[in-house]
Amino acid sequence: MSLDAPPLSGPRLDEIDGLTVLQALSDPVRLEIVRQLAGCELKCGQVQLPVTKSTASHHFKILLEAGIVGERAQGTSKFLHLRRAELDERFPGLLDSVLAASRHVSIS
Amino acid sequence: MSLDAPPLSGPRLDEIDGLTVLQALSDPVRLEIVRQLAGCELKCGQVQLPVTKSTASHHFKILLEAGIVGERAQGTSKFLHLRRAELDERFPGLLDSVLAASRHVSIS
Repeated sequence: MSLDAPPLSGPRLDEIDGLTVLQALSDPVRLEIVRQLAGCELKCGQVQLPVTKSTASHHFKILLEAGIVGERAQGTSKFLHLRRAELDERFPGLLDSVLAASRHVSIS
Repeated sequence: MSLDAPPLSGPRLDEIDGLTVLQALSDPVRLEIVRQLAGCELKCGQVQLPVTKSTASHHFKILLEAGIVGERAQGTSKFLHLRRAELDERFPGLLDSVLAASRHVSIS
Protein backbone atom coordinates (compact mmCIF):
# COMPACT_ATOMS: atom_id res chain seq x y z
CA MET A 1 0.00 0.00 0.00
CA SER A 2 1.42 3.33 -1.07
CA LEU A 3 1.76 6.07 1.50
CA ASP A 4 -0.37 8.18 -0.82
CA ALA A 5 -3.22 5.68 -0.90
CA PRO A 6 -6.56 7.02 0.28
CA PRO A 7 -8.03 5.84 3.58
CA LEU A 8 -9.68 2.41 3.44
CA SER A 9 -13.00 3.99 4.30
CA GLY A 10 -14.59 7.30 5.13
CA PRO A 11 -15.19 10.40 3.09
CA ARG A 12 -12.64 12.22 0.96
CA LEU A 13 -11.42 15.50 2.39
CA ASP A 14 -13.77 17.56 0.21
CA GLU A 15 -16.71 15.41 1.27
CA ILE A 16 -16.23 15.91 5.01
CA ASP A 17 -19.26 17.75 6.35
CA GLY A 18 -18.96 20.31 9.14
CA LEU A 19 -22.23 19.47 10.87
CA THR A 20 -21.49 15.73 10.74
CA VAL A 21 -18.07 16.38 12.30
CA LEU A 22 -19.63 18.48 15.07
CA GLN A 23 -22.27 15.85 15.80
CA ALA A 24 -19.64 13.10 15.85
CA LEU A 25 -17.52 15.08 18.31
CA SER A 26 -20.45 15.86 20.63
CA ASP A 27 -20.14 12.64 22.57
CA PRO A 28 -17.87 11.91 25.55
CA VAL A 29 -16.80 8.43 24.34
CA ARG A 30 -15.90 9.70 20.88
CA LEU A 31 -14.04 12.66 22.35
CA GLU A 32 -12.03 10.20 24.43
CA ILE A 33 -11.21 8.15 21.30
CA VAL A 34 -10.08 11.31 19.52
CA ARG A 35 -7.93 12.30 22.49
CA GLN A 36 -6.22 8.89 22.57
CA LEU A 37 -5.61 9.00 18.81
CA ALA A 38 -4.26 12.56 18.99
CA GLY A 39 -0.86 11.24 19.98
CA CYS A 40 -0.48 8.04 17.99
CA GLU A 41 -1.96 5.46 15.69
CA LEU A 42 -3.65 2.62 17.61
CA LYS A 43 -5.28 -0.71 16.91
CA CYS A 44 -9.00 -0.66 17.79
CA GLY A 45 -8.34 -2.91 20.77
CA GLN A 46 -5.66 -0.58 22.09
CA VAL A 47 -8.09 2.30 22.58
CA GLN A 48 -8.99 2.16 26.28
CA LEU A 49 -12.72 2.71 26.77
CA PRO A 50 -15.14 1.75 29.56
CA VAL A 51 -17.70 0.41 27.08
CA THR A 52 -18.36 -2.94 25.41
CA LYS A 53 -16.54 -3.90 22.23
CA SER A 54 -19.69 -3.49 20.14
CA THR A 55 -20.36 -0.03 21.60
CA ALA A 56 -16.77 0.95 20.88
CA SER A 57 -17.15 -0.34 17.29
CA HIS A 58 -20.26 1.80 16.89
CA HIS A 59 -18.35 4.90 17.96
CA PHE A 60 -15.36 4.05 15.71
CA LYS A 61 -17.77 3.73 12.78
CA ILE A 62 -19.31 7.16 13.44
CA LEU A 63 -15.84 8.75 13.61
CA LEU A 64 -14.73 6.94 10.43
CA GLU A 65 -17.86 7.93 8.50
CA ALA A 66 -17.58 11.54 9.66
CA GLY A 67 -14.00 11.64 8.34
CA ILE A 68 -12.45 12.37 11.73
CA VAL A 69 -10.66 9.05 12.00
CA GLY A 70 -9.05 6.97 9.27
CA GLU A 71 -8.01 3.34 9.28
CA ARG A 72 -5.10 1.47 7.79
CA ALA A 73 -4.86 -2.28 7.33
CA GLN A 74 -1.60 -4.00 8.15
CA GLY A 75 -1.75 -7.76 7.82
CA THR A 76 -4.86 -8.81 9.68
CA SER A 77 -4.82 -5.74 11.94
CA LYS A 78 -6.56 -2.43 11.49
CA PHE A 79 -4.93 0.71 12.81
CA LEU A 80 -6.88 3.87 13.57
CA HIS A 81 -5.49 7.37 13.26
CA LEU A 82 -6.79 10.89 13.56
CA ARG A 83 -7.10 12.65 10.16
CA ARG A 84 -5.69 15.71 11.86
CA ALA A 85 -3.86 17.39 8.97
CA GLU A 86 -6.88 16.99 6.69
CA LEU A 87 -9.32 18.25 9.32
CA ASP A 88 -7.06 21.20 10.10
CA GLU A 89 -6.97 22.03 6.39
CA ARG A 90 -10.74 21.81 5.93
CA PHE A 91 -11.82 23.25 9.32
CA PRO A 92 -8.94 25.35 10.65
CA GLY A 93 -8.76 25.37 14.42
CA LEU A 94 -11.84 23.23 14.96
CA LEU A 95 -10.22 20.07 16.28
CA ASP A 96 -7.83 21.88 18.60
CA SER A 97 -10.54 24.15 20.03
CA VAL A 98 -12.95 21.22 20.51
CA LEU A 99 -10.27 19.16 22.26
CA ALA A 100 -9.39 22.12 24.48
CA ALA A 101 -13.05 22.85 25.28
CA SER A 102 -13.69 19.23 26.22
CA ARG A 103 -10.51 18.50 28.14
CA HIS A 104 -12.44 18.12 31.39
CA VAL A 105 -15.13 15.92 29.86
CA SER A 106 -15.19 12.45 31.38
CA ILE A 107 -17.08 9.38 30.26
CA SER A 108 -19.94 8.97 32.72
CA MET B 1 -30.89 47.46 34.57
CA SER B 2 -27.19 48.06 34.80
CA LEU B 3 -25.00 47.16 31.84
CA ASP B 4 -22.98 45.05 34.25
CA ALA B 5 -25.96 42.99 35.38
CA PRO B 6 -25.62 39.25 34.82
CA PRO B 7 -27.75 37.51 32.20
CA LEU B 8 -31.34 36.87 33.26
CA SER B 9 -30.79 33.14 32.89
CA GLY B 10 -28.21 30.61 31.90
CA PRO B 11 -24.98 29.47 33.54
CA ARG B 12 -22.24 31.72 34.83
CA LEU B 13 -19.10 31.76 32.72
CA ASP B 14 -17.31 29.31 35.00
CA GLU B 15 -20.26 26.94 34.86
CA ILE B 16 -20.39 26.70 31.07
CA ASP B 17 -19.64 23.10 30.09
CA GLY B 18 -17.68 22.27 26.94
CA LEU B 19 -19.62 19.14 26.03
CA THR B 20 -22.96 20.89 26.57
CA VAL B 21 -21.82 23.72 24.29
CA LEU B 22 -20.72 21.25 21.60
CA GLN B 23 -24.00 19.35 21.80
CA ALA B 24 -25.98 22.58 21.65
CA LEU B 25 -24.08 23.70 18.56
CA SER B 26 -24.52 20.36 16.76
CA ASP B 27 -27.87 21.25 15.27
CA PRO B 28 -28.60 23.17 12.07
CA VAL B 29 -31.39 25.30 13.55
CA ARG B 30 -29.29 26.32 16.54
CA LEU B 31 -26.30 27.07 14.31
CA GLU B 32 -28.56 29.35 12.27
CA ILE B 33 -29.71 31.14 15.45
CA VAL B 34 -26.08 31.63 16.49
CA ARG B 35 -25.20 32.96 13.03
CA GLN B 36 -28.04 35.50 13.14
CA LEU B 37 -27.05 36.61 16.64
CA ALA B 38 -23.38 36.89 15.67
CA GLY B 39 -23.99 40.34 14.25
CA CYS B 40 -26.56 41.87 16.57
CA GLU B 41 -28.92 41.50 19.48
CA LEU B 42 -32.39 40.41 18.37
CA LYS B 43 -35.84 39.87 19.86
CA CYS B 44 -36.86 36.19 19.73
CA GLY B 45 -39.42 36.99 17.05
CA GLN B 46 -36.81 38.70 14.89
CA VAL B 47 -34.76 35.53 14.46
CA GLN B 48 -35.83 34.16 11.09
CA LEU B 49 -36.31 30.40 11.24
CA PRO B 50 -38.37 27.95 9.15
CA VAL B 51 -39.77 26.25 12.25
CA THR B 52 -42.78 26.79 14.50
CA LYS B 53 -42.63 29.25 17.37
CA SER B 54 -42.61 26.44 19.94
CA THR B 55 -39.76 24.65 18.15
CA ALA B 56 -37.82 27.91 18.00
CA SER B 57 -38.44 28.43 21.75
CA HIS B 58 -37.08 24.94 22.44
CA HIS B 59 -33.89 25.75 20.56
CA PHE B 60 -33.52 29.17 22.29
CA LYS B 61 -33.85 27.38 25.65
CA ILE B 62 -31.08 24.90 24.80
CA LEU B 63 -28.77 27.73 23.71
CA LEU B 64 -29.60 29.75 26.86
CA GLU B 65 -29.05 26.80 29.19
CA ALA B 66 -25.76 25.92 27.47
CA GLY B 67 -24.55 29.48 28.03
CA ILE B 68 -24.13 30.24 24.33
CA VAL B 69 -26.91 32.81 24.23
CA GLY B 70 -27.97 35.31 26.86
CA GLU B 71 -31.16 37.30 27.18
CA ARG B 72 -31.94 40.79 28.32
CA ALA B 73 -35.34 42.13 29.29
CA GLN B 74 -36.35 45.59 28.13
CA GLY B 75 -39.88 46.53 29.04
CA THR B 76 -42.01 43.59 27.97
CA SER B 77 -39.52 42.44 25.34
CA LYS B 78 -36.71 39.94 25.62
CA PHE B 79 -33.60 40.42 23.56
CA LEU B 80 -31.21 37.60 22.74
CA HIS B 81 -27.47 37.99 22.24
CA LEU B 82 -24.51 35.76 21.68
CA ARG B 83 -22.26 35.48 24.77
CA ARG B 84 -19.33 35.74 22.40
CA ALA B 85 -16.75 37.45 24.60
CA GLU B 86 -17.41 35.03 27.45
CA LEU B 87 -17.31 31.97 25.19
CA ASP B 88 -14.12 33.20 23.56
CA GLU B 89 -12.59 33.60 27.01
CA ARG B 90 -13.62 30.16 28.22
CA PHE B 91 -13.18 28.22 24.96
CA PRO B 92 -10.74 30.19 22.78
CA GLY B 93 -11.39 29.79 19.08
CA LEU B 94 -14.30 27.38 19.49
CA LEU B 95 -17.16 29.57 18.36
CA ASP B 96 -15.31 31.00 15.36
CA SER B 97 -14.10 27.59 14.18
CA VAL B 98 -17.55 26.04 14.61
CA LEU B 99 -19.19 28.89 12.71
CA ALA B 100 -16.62 28.58 9.93
CA ALA B 101 -16.95 24.78 9.77
CA SER B 102 -20.73 25.03 9.51
CA ARG B 103 -21.04 27.97 7.16
CA HIS B 104 -22.51 25.76 4.43
CA VAL B 105 -24.95 24.04 6.75
CA SER B 106 -28.54 24.71 5.81
CA ILE B 107 -31.72 23.91 7.72
CA SER B 108 -33.30 20.95 5.93
